Amino acid sequence: MWWHRVSVFSGKVWMYLLRGEHRKYGLRFSLFFTGHRYISQAAAKIDVDFDYDGPLMKTEVPGPRSRELMKKLNGIQNAEAVHFFCNYEESRGNYLVDVDGNRMLDLYSQISSIPIGYSHPSLIKLLQQPQNLSTFINRPALGILPPENFTEKLHESLLSVAPKGLSQVMTMSCGSCSNENAFKAIFMWYRNKERGHNNVTKEELESCMINQMGIILIFPSLGIGCLATTHSKAIHKLDIPSLDWPIAPFPRLKYPLEDFVKENQQEEARCLEEVEDLIVKYRKKKKIVAGIIVEPIQSEGGDNHASDDFFRKLRDIARKHGCAFLVDEVQTGGGCTGKFWAHEHWGLDDPADVVTFSKKMMTGGFFHKEEFRPNAPYRIFNTWLGDPSKNLMLAEVIKVIKTEDLLNNATHAGKALLTGLLDLQARYPHLISRVRGRGTFCSFDTPNDATRNKLITIARNKGVVLGGCGDRSIRFRPTLIFKDHHAHLFLNIFSDILANFK
Amino acid sequence: MWWHRVSVFSGKVWMYLLRGEHRKYGLRFSLFFTGHRYISQAAAKIDVDFDYDGPLMKTEVPGPRSRELMKKLNGIQNAEAVHFFCNYEESRGNYLVDVDGNRMLDLYSQISSIPIGYSHPSLIKLLQQPQNLSTFINRPALGILPPENFTEKLHESLLSVAPKGLSQVMTMSCGSCSNENAFKAIFMWYRNKERGHNNVTKEELESCMINQMGIILIFPSLGIGCLATTHSKAIHKLDIPSLDWPIAPFPRLKYPLEDFVKENQQEEARCLEEVEDLIVKYRKKKKIVAGIIVEPIQSEGGDNHASDDFFRKLRDIARKHGCAFLVDEVQTGGGCTGKFWAHEHWGLDDPADVVTFSKKMMTGGFFHKEEFRPNAPYRIFNTWLGDPSKNLMLAEVIKVIKTEDLLNNATHAGKALLTGLLDLQARYPHLISRVRGRGTFCSFDTPNDATRNKLITIARNKGVVLGGCGDRSIRFRPTLIFKDHHAHLFLNIFSDILANFK
Repeated sequence: MWWHRVSVFSGKVWMYLLRGEHRKYGLRFSLFFTGHRYISQAAAKIDVDFDYDGPLMKTEVPGPRSRELMKKLNGIQNAEAVHFFCNYEESRGNYLVDVDGNRMLDLYSQISSIPIGYSHPSLIKLLQQPQNLSTFINRPALGILPPENFTEKLHESLLSVAPKGLSQVMTMSCGSCSNENAFKAIFMWYRNKERGHNNVTKEELESCMINQMGIILIFPSLGIGCLATTHSKAIHKLDIPSLDWPIAPFPRLKYPLEDFVKENQQEEARCLEEVEDLIVKYRKKKKIVAGIIVEPIQSEGGDNHASDDFFRKLRDIARKHGCAFLVDEVQTGGGCTGKFWAHEHWGLDDPADVVTFSKKMMTGGFFHKEEFRPNAPYRIFNTWLGDPSKNLMLAEVIKVIKTEDLLNNATHAGKALLTGLLDLQARYPHLISRVRGRGTFCSFDTPNDATRNKLITIARNKGVVLGGCGDRSIRFRPTLIFKDHHAHLFLNIFSDILANFK
Repeated sequence: MWWHRVSVFSGKVWMYLLRGEHRKYGLRFSLFFTGHRYISQAAAKIDVDFDYDGPLMKTEVPGPRSRELMKKLNGIQNAEAVHFFCNYEESRGNYLVDVDGNRMLDLYSQISSIPIGYSHPSLIKLLQQPQNLSTFINRPALGILPPENFTEKLHESLLSVAPKGLSQVMTMSCGSCSNENAFKAIFMWYRNKERGHNNVTKEELESCMINQMGIILIFPSLGIGCLATTHSKAIHKLDIPSLDWPIAPFPRLKYPLEDFVKENQQEEARCLEEVEDLIVKYRKKKKIVAGIIVEPIQSEGGDNHASDDFFRKLRDIARKHGCAFLVDEVQTGGGCTGKFWAHEHWGLDDPADVVTFSKKMMTGGFFHKEEFRPNAPYRIFNTWLGDPSKNLMLAEVIKVIKTEDLLNNATHAGKALLTGLLDLQARYPHLISRVRGRGTFCSFDTPNDATRNKLITIARNKGVVLGGCGDRSIRFRPTLIFKDHHAHLFLNIFSDILANFK
């Protein structure tokens, strides 16, 4: 039980950080000694052996070494998105160390893609076992020449956490390939259903471009097929040709939810109606909506949530109109919401048809029902089709998640984080609004883009890495070994930032 | 100098193989003792320490263990494309070992994606070095938080072999993402060129779907954006919606080239004319051809070659019409044609604008000229943007290629292979035609699909893994450590197969 190990936070490292910054930047930290602005009186010490016990800042971030490296990288590619350069050898647990020796509590974890923290001892051990070497250096073409343990590792890893009702799985090398290939599986399923048979005629093979199908909804991946459906930032889509696929709105809920029950129900009803309208409208144009894709929490688009009821009704609409129901769990999957898959919270009677994943799963890919299985070889195919070394690591990661009860941890630590954020919202309503979250997958809005970015920058210089999403949100994407005491540590630091924010 | 180490082939292992099969399948191998059908009298022994010295067959392929595993895999995904299951731990050099203990000379090398053979000692050593562990277990979001040695490793690996004139490089996780993101870079470049400035107006950001652009030509990757341009098998495209992008024909040359000089010139001129016609035709439809993509050897489409002059003229057409010139080196890149990039054979005055890669390069990605650099961060972006562990391995692979002079080896061994194939063609013209190749990137046609597949199956049971492409071709895609003696070994086995083919 992780909470038995929580002990009282000494504040030593934390003081060091603030004093260090005080000296360097001449900021005032009187509040550190007043204490009343701290959300938590009992931030905790480390309870994971390999984790550090707090941030440790030596320079502004990016520091001089990072800036030097950014300049070099910028010579060979646009490096303007780089935050700073990292020393991954020294990064451990929830702490990311940069090349200037700054150690930061990482609540963004490589855009939500580090499952059990940096340099986890189990993964180091895995790499050190001689029998695993071959998996890392002999990368096969999985679709034609899989390794002996391929199926076994899929059972140990992906299939051991497969969403209910989805017995089939394909692996892919990244998130956008996962969604693109899931679309392909859906189109094939739809056309086979239309044909009423699985045999393709010669005529069909010879004129096989079916441009009259699309997928409805909202998600952020970045391939050309995927771009047709993205609600991500405009800069991702600018100048890129796209398919004419219908896009429906994701509900925009008002917070606190308990004060806006009726408004939010209306908003969700409006969005569901638009989905049905789009299906009908496109059918009138002789265009087919073969499927509906949705993220359980619309992530890049600004961490938008909807009720479980909304998703159950969306699933019903998909079934009613003969559309496949695809749940994009690329960002929400892997346990951060307190269940392995965020859509498990919905309590669907009829499972999703297809579920895509990547990021924390270390490999991309998708689960699907048996009826979505391609009816011939090579229909879902590319050279690598994923990477067995990622499956090997994922099997170990899932073992750690189970052994250390990390799903319950995400629920518990998420509650500590959310409670603290709500408290900050009550105290700083001009800076923080719409606090929301499930497990540690939390977020809040700031007044505008400029304030958001300023808060992220200040937090970073105080030893906390945060991420933004949408046009004004800050999102939390910690690892699964993020505990209550990390939440308290963050809340203390952030409370201080808000108190001093100008 | 590798050829100093070539010694006379003893034939021992080879005899064992045939005798073993003789006992098992009751085939007749009288020719083994007659010798006259052997192309080479002097096949060579191993000259790479870790390589095996010949095939060793114990069962039919797929053997009982493979068939058992195929059944299991088929329970969770369509496994009909699987050839057999592999024991990668036992696979070494040019030899792929399967789960039934069969050891085969691998001339397909995981669809051309194993650069320096299985279990190369340099890569094993790399994995064993403790300082490299972190790179394998802490996978970063490269676009925002790169590791300290990121730029340095790119210089040691990709940039040390960058095509002339291309100073910029982006990494991606797989081949289709590489082409898709290269398209995106081209569209952005084209639109910026049209605008005459790099600043995007607010109106443009708000209505940013530019569906009037496409890319011309021919290649085989399998994303939805990529599918718009693929000339791969119809089964890859069936039922998948696609963009309206123009597709021009790849020249279909007649062999032997010296007998059809005029016809082939006319064929190439016809194809070039069609490219220009398509650009004009699409412009009349108010559609823009932003770029031209071509493979130096059209691989999945059937190993189609064209003259260096054809490509130089194609490059001129691209420039004349303001189109970007993208060379897809996913399959041809990495040294197998005897130059690191196949398009280096063309002697272009003006370099290609963009060159994509994957497979043997271990990471996907693309090189480009500075003018194709995105003018803002996040325009070419996804979570992983490749994988530094692949860059680390690639740096080592390139070191081996240079130290062991493997480009010259590909030229030399390719010549041995091609000469032998031409000899076989002379003797079995009813089975082998259109022998062609550059370096070890060789191929020939068979009379039809059934004959091709039968030849591949027989060869596999005799200890040689071959691959097919197009509707009737057999392609050679050995590793870069494939030597003359491997060519002779193959030619001996294949000569025997052809002599007995019914």
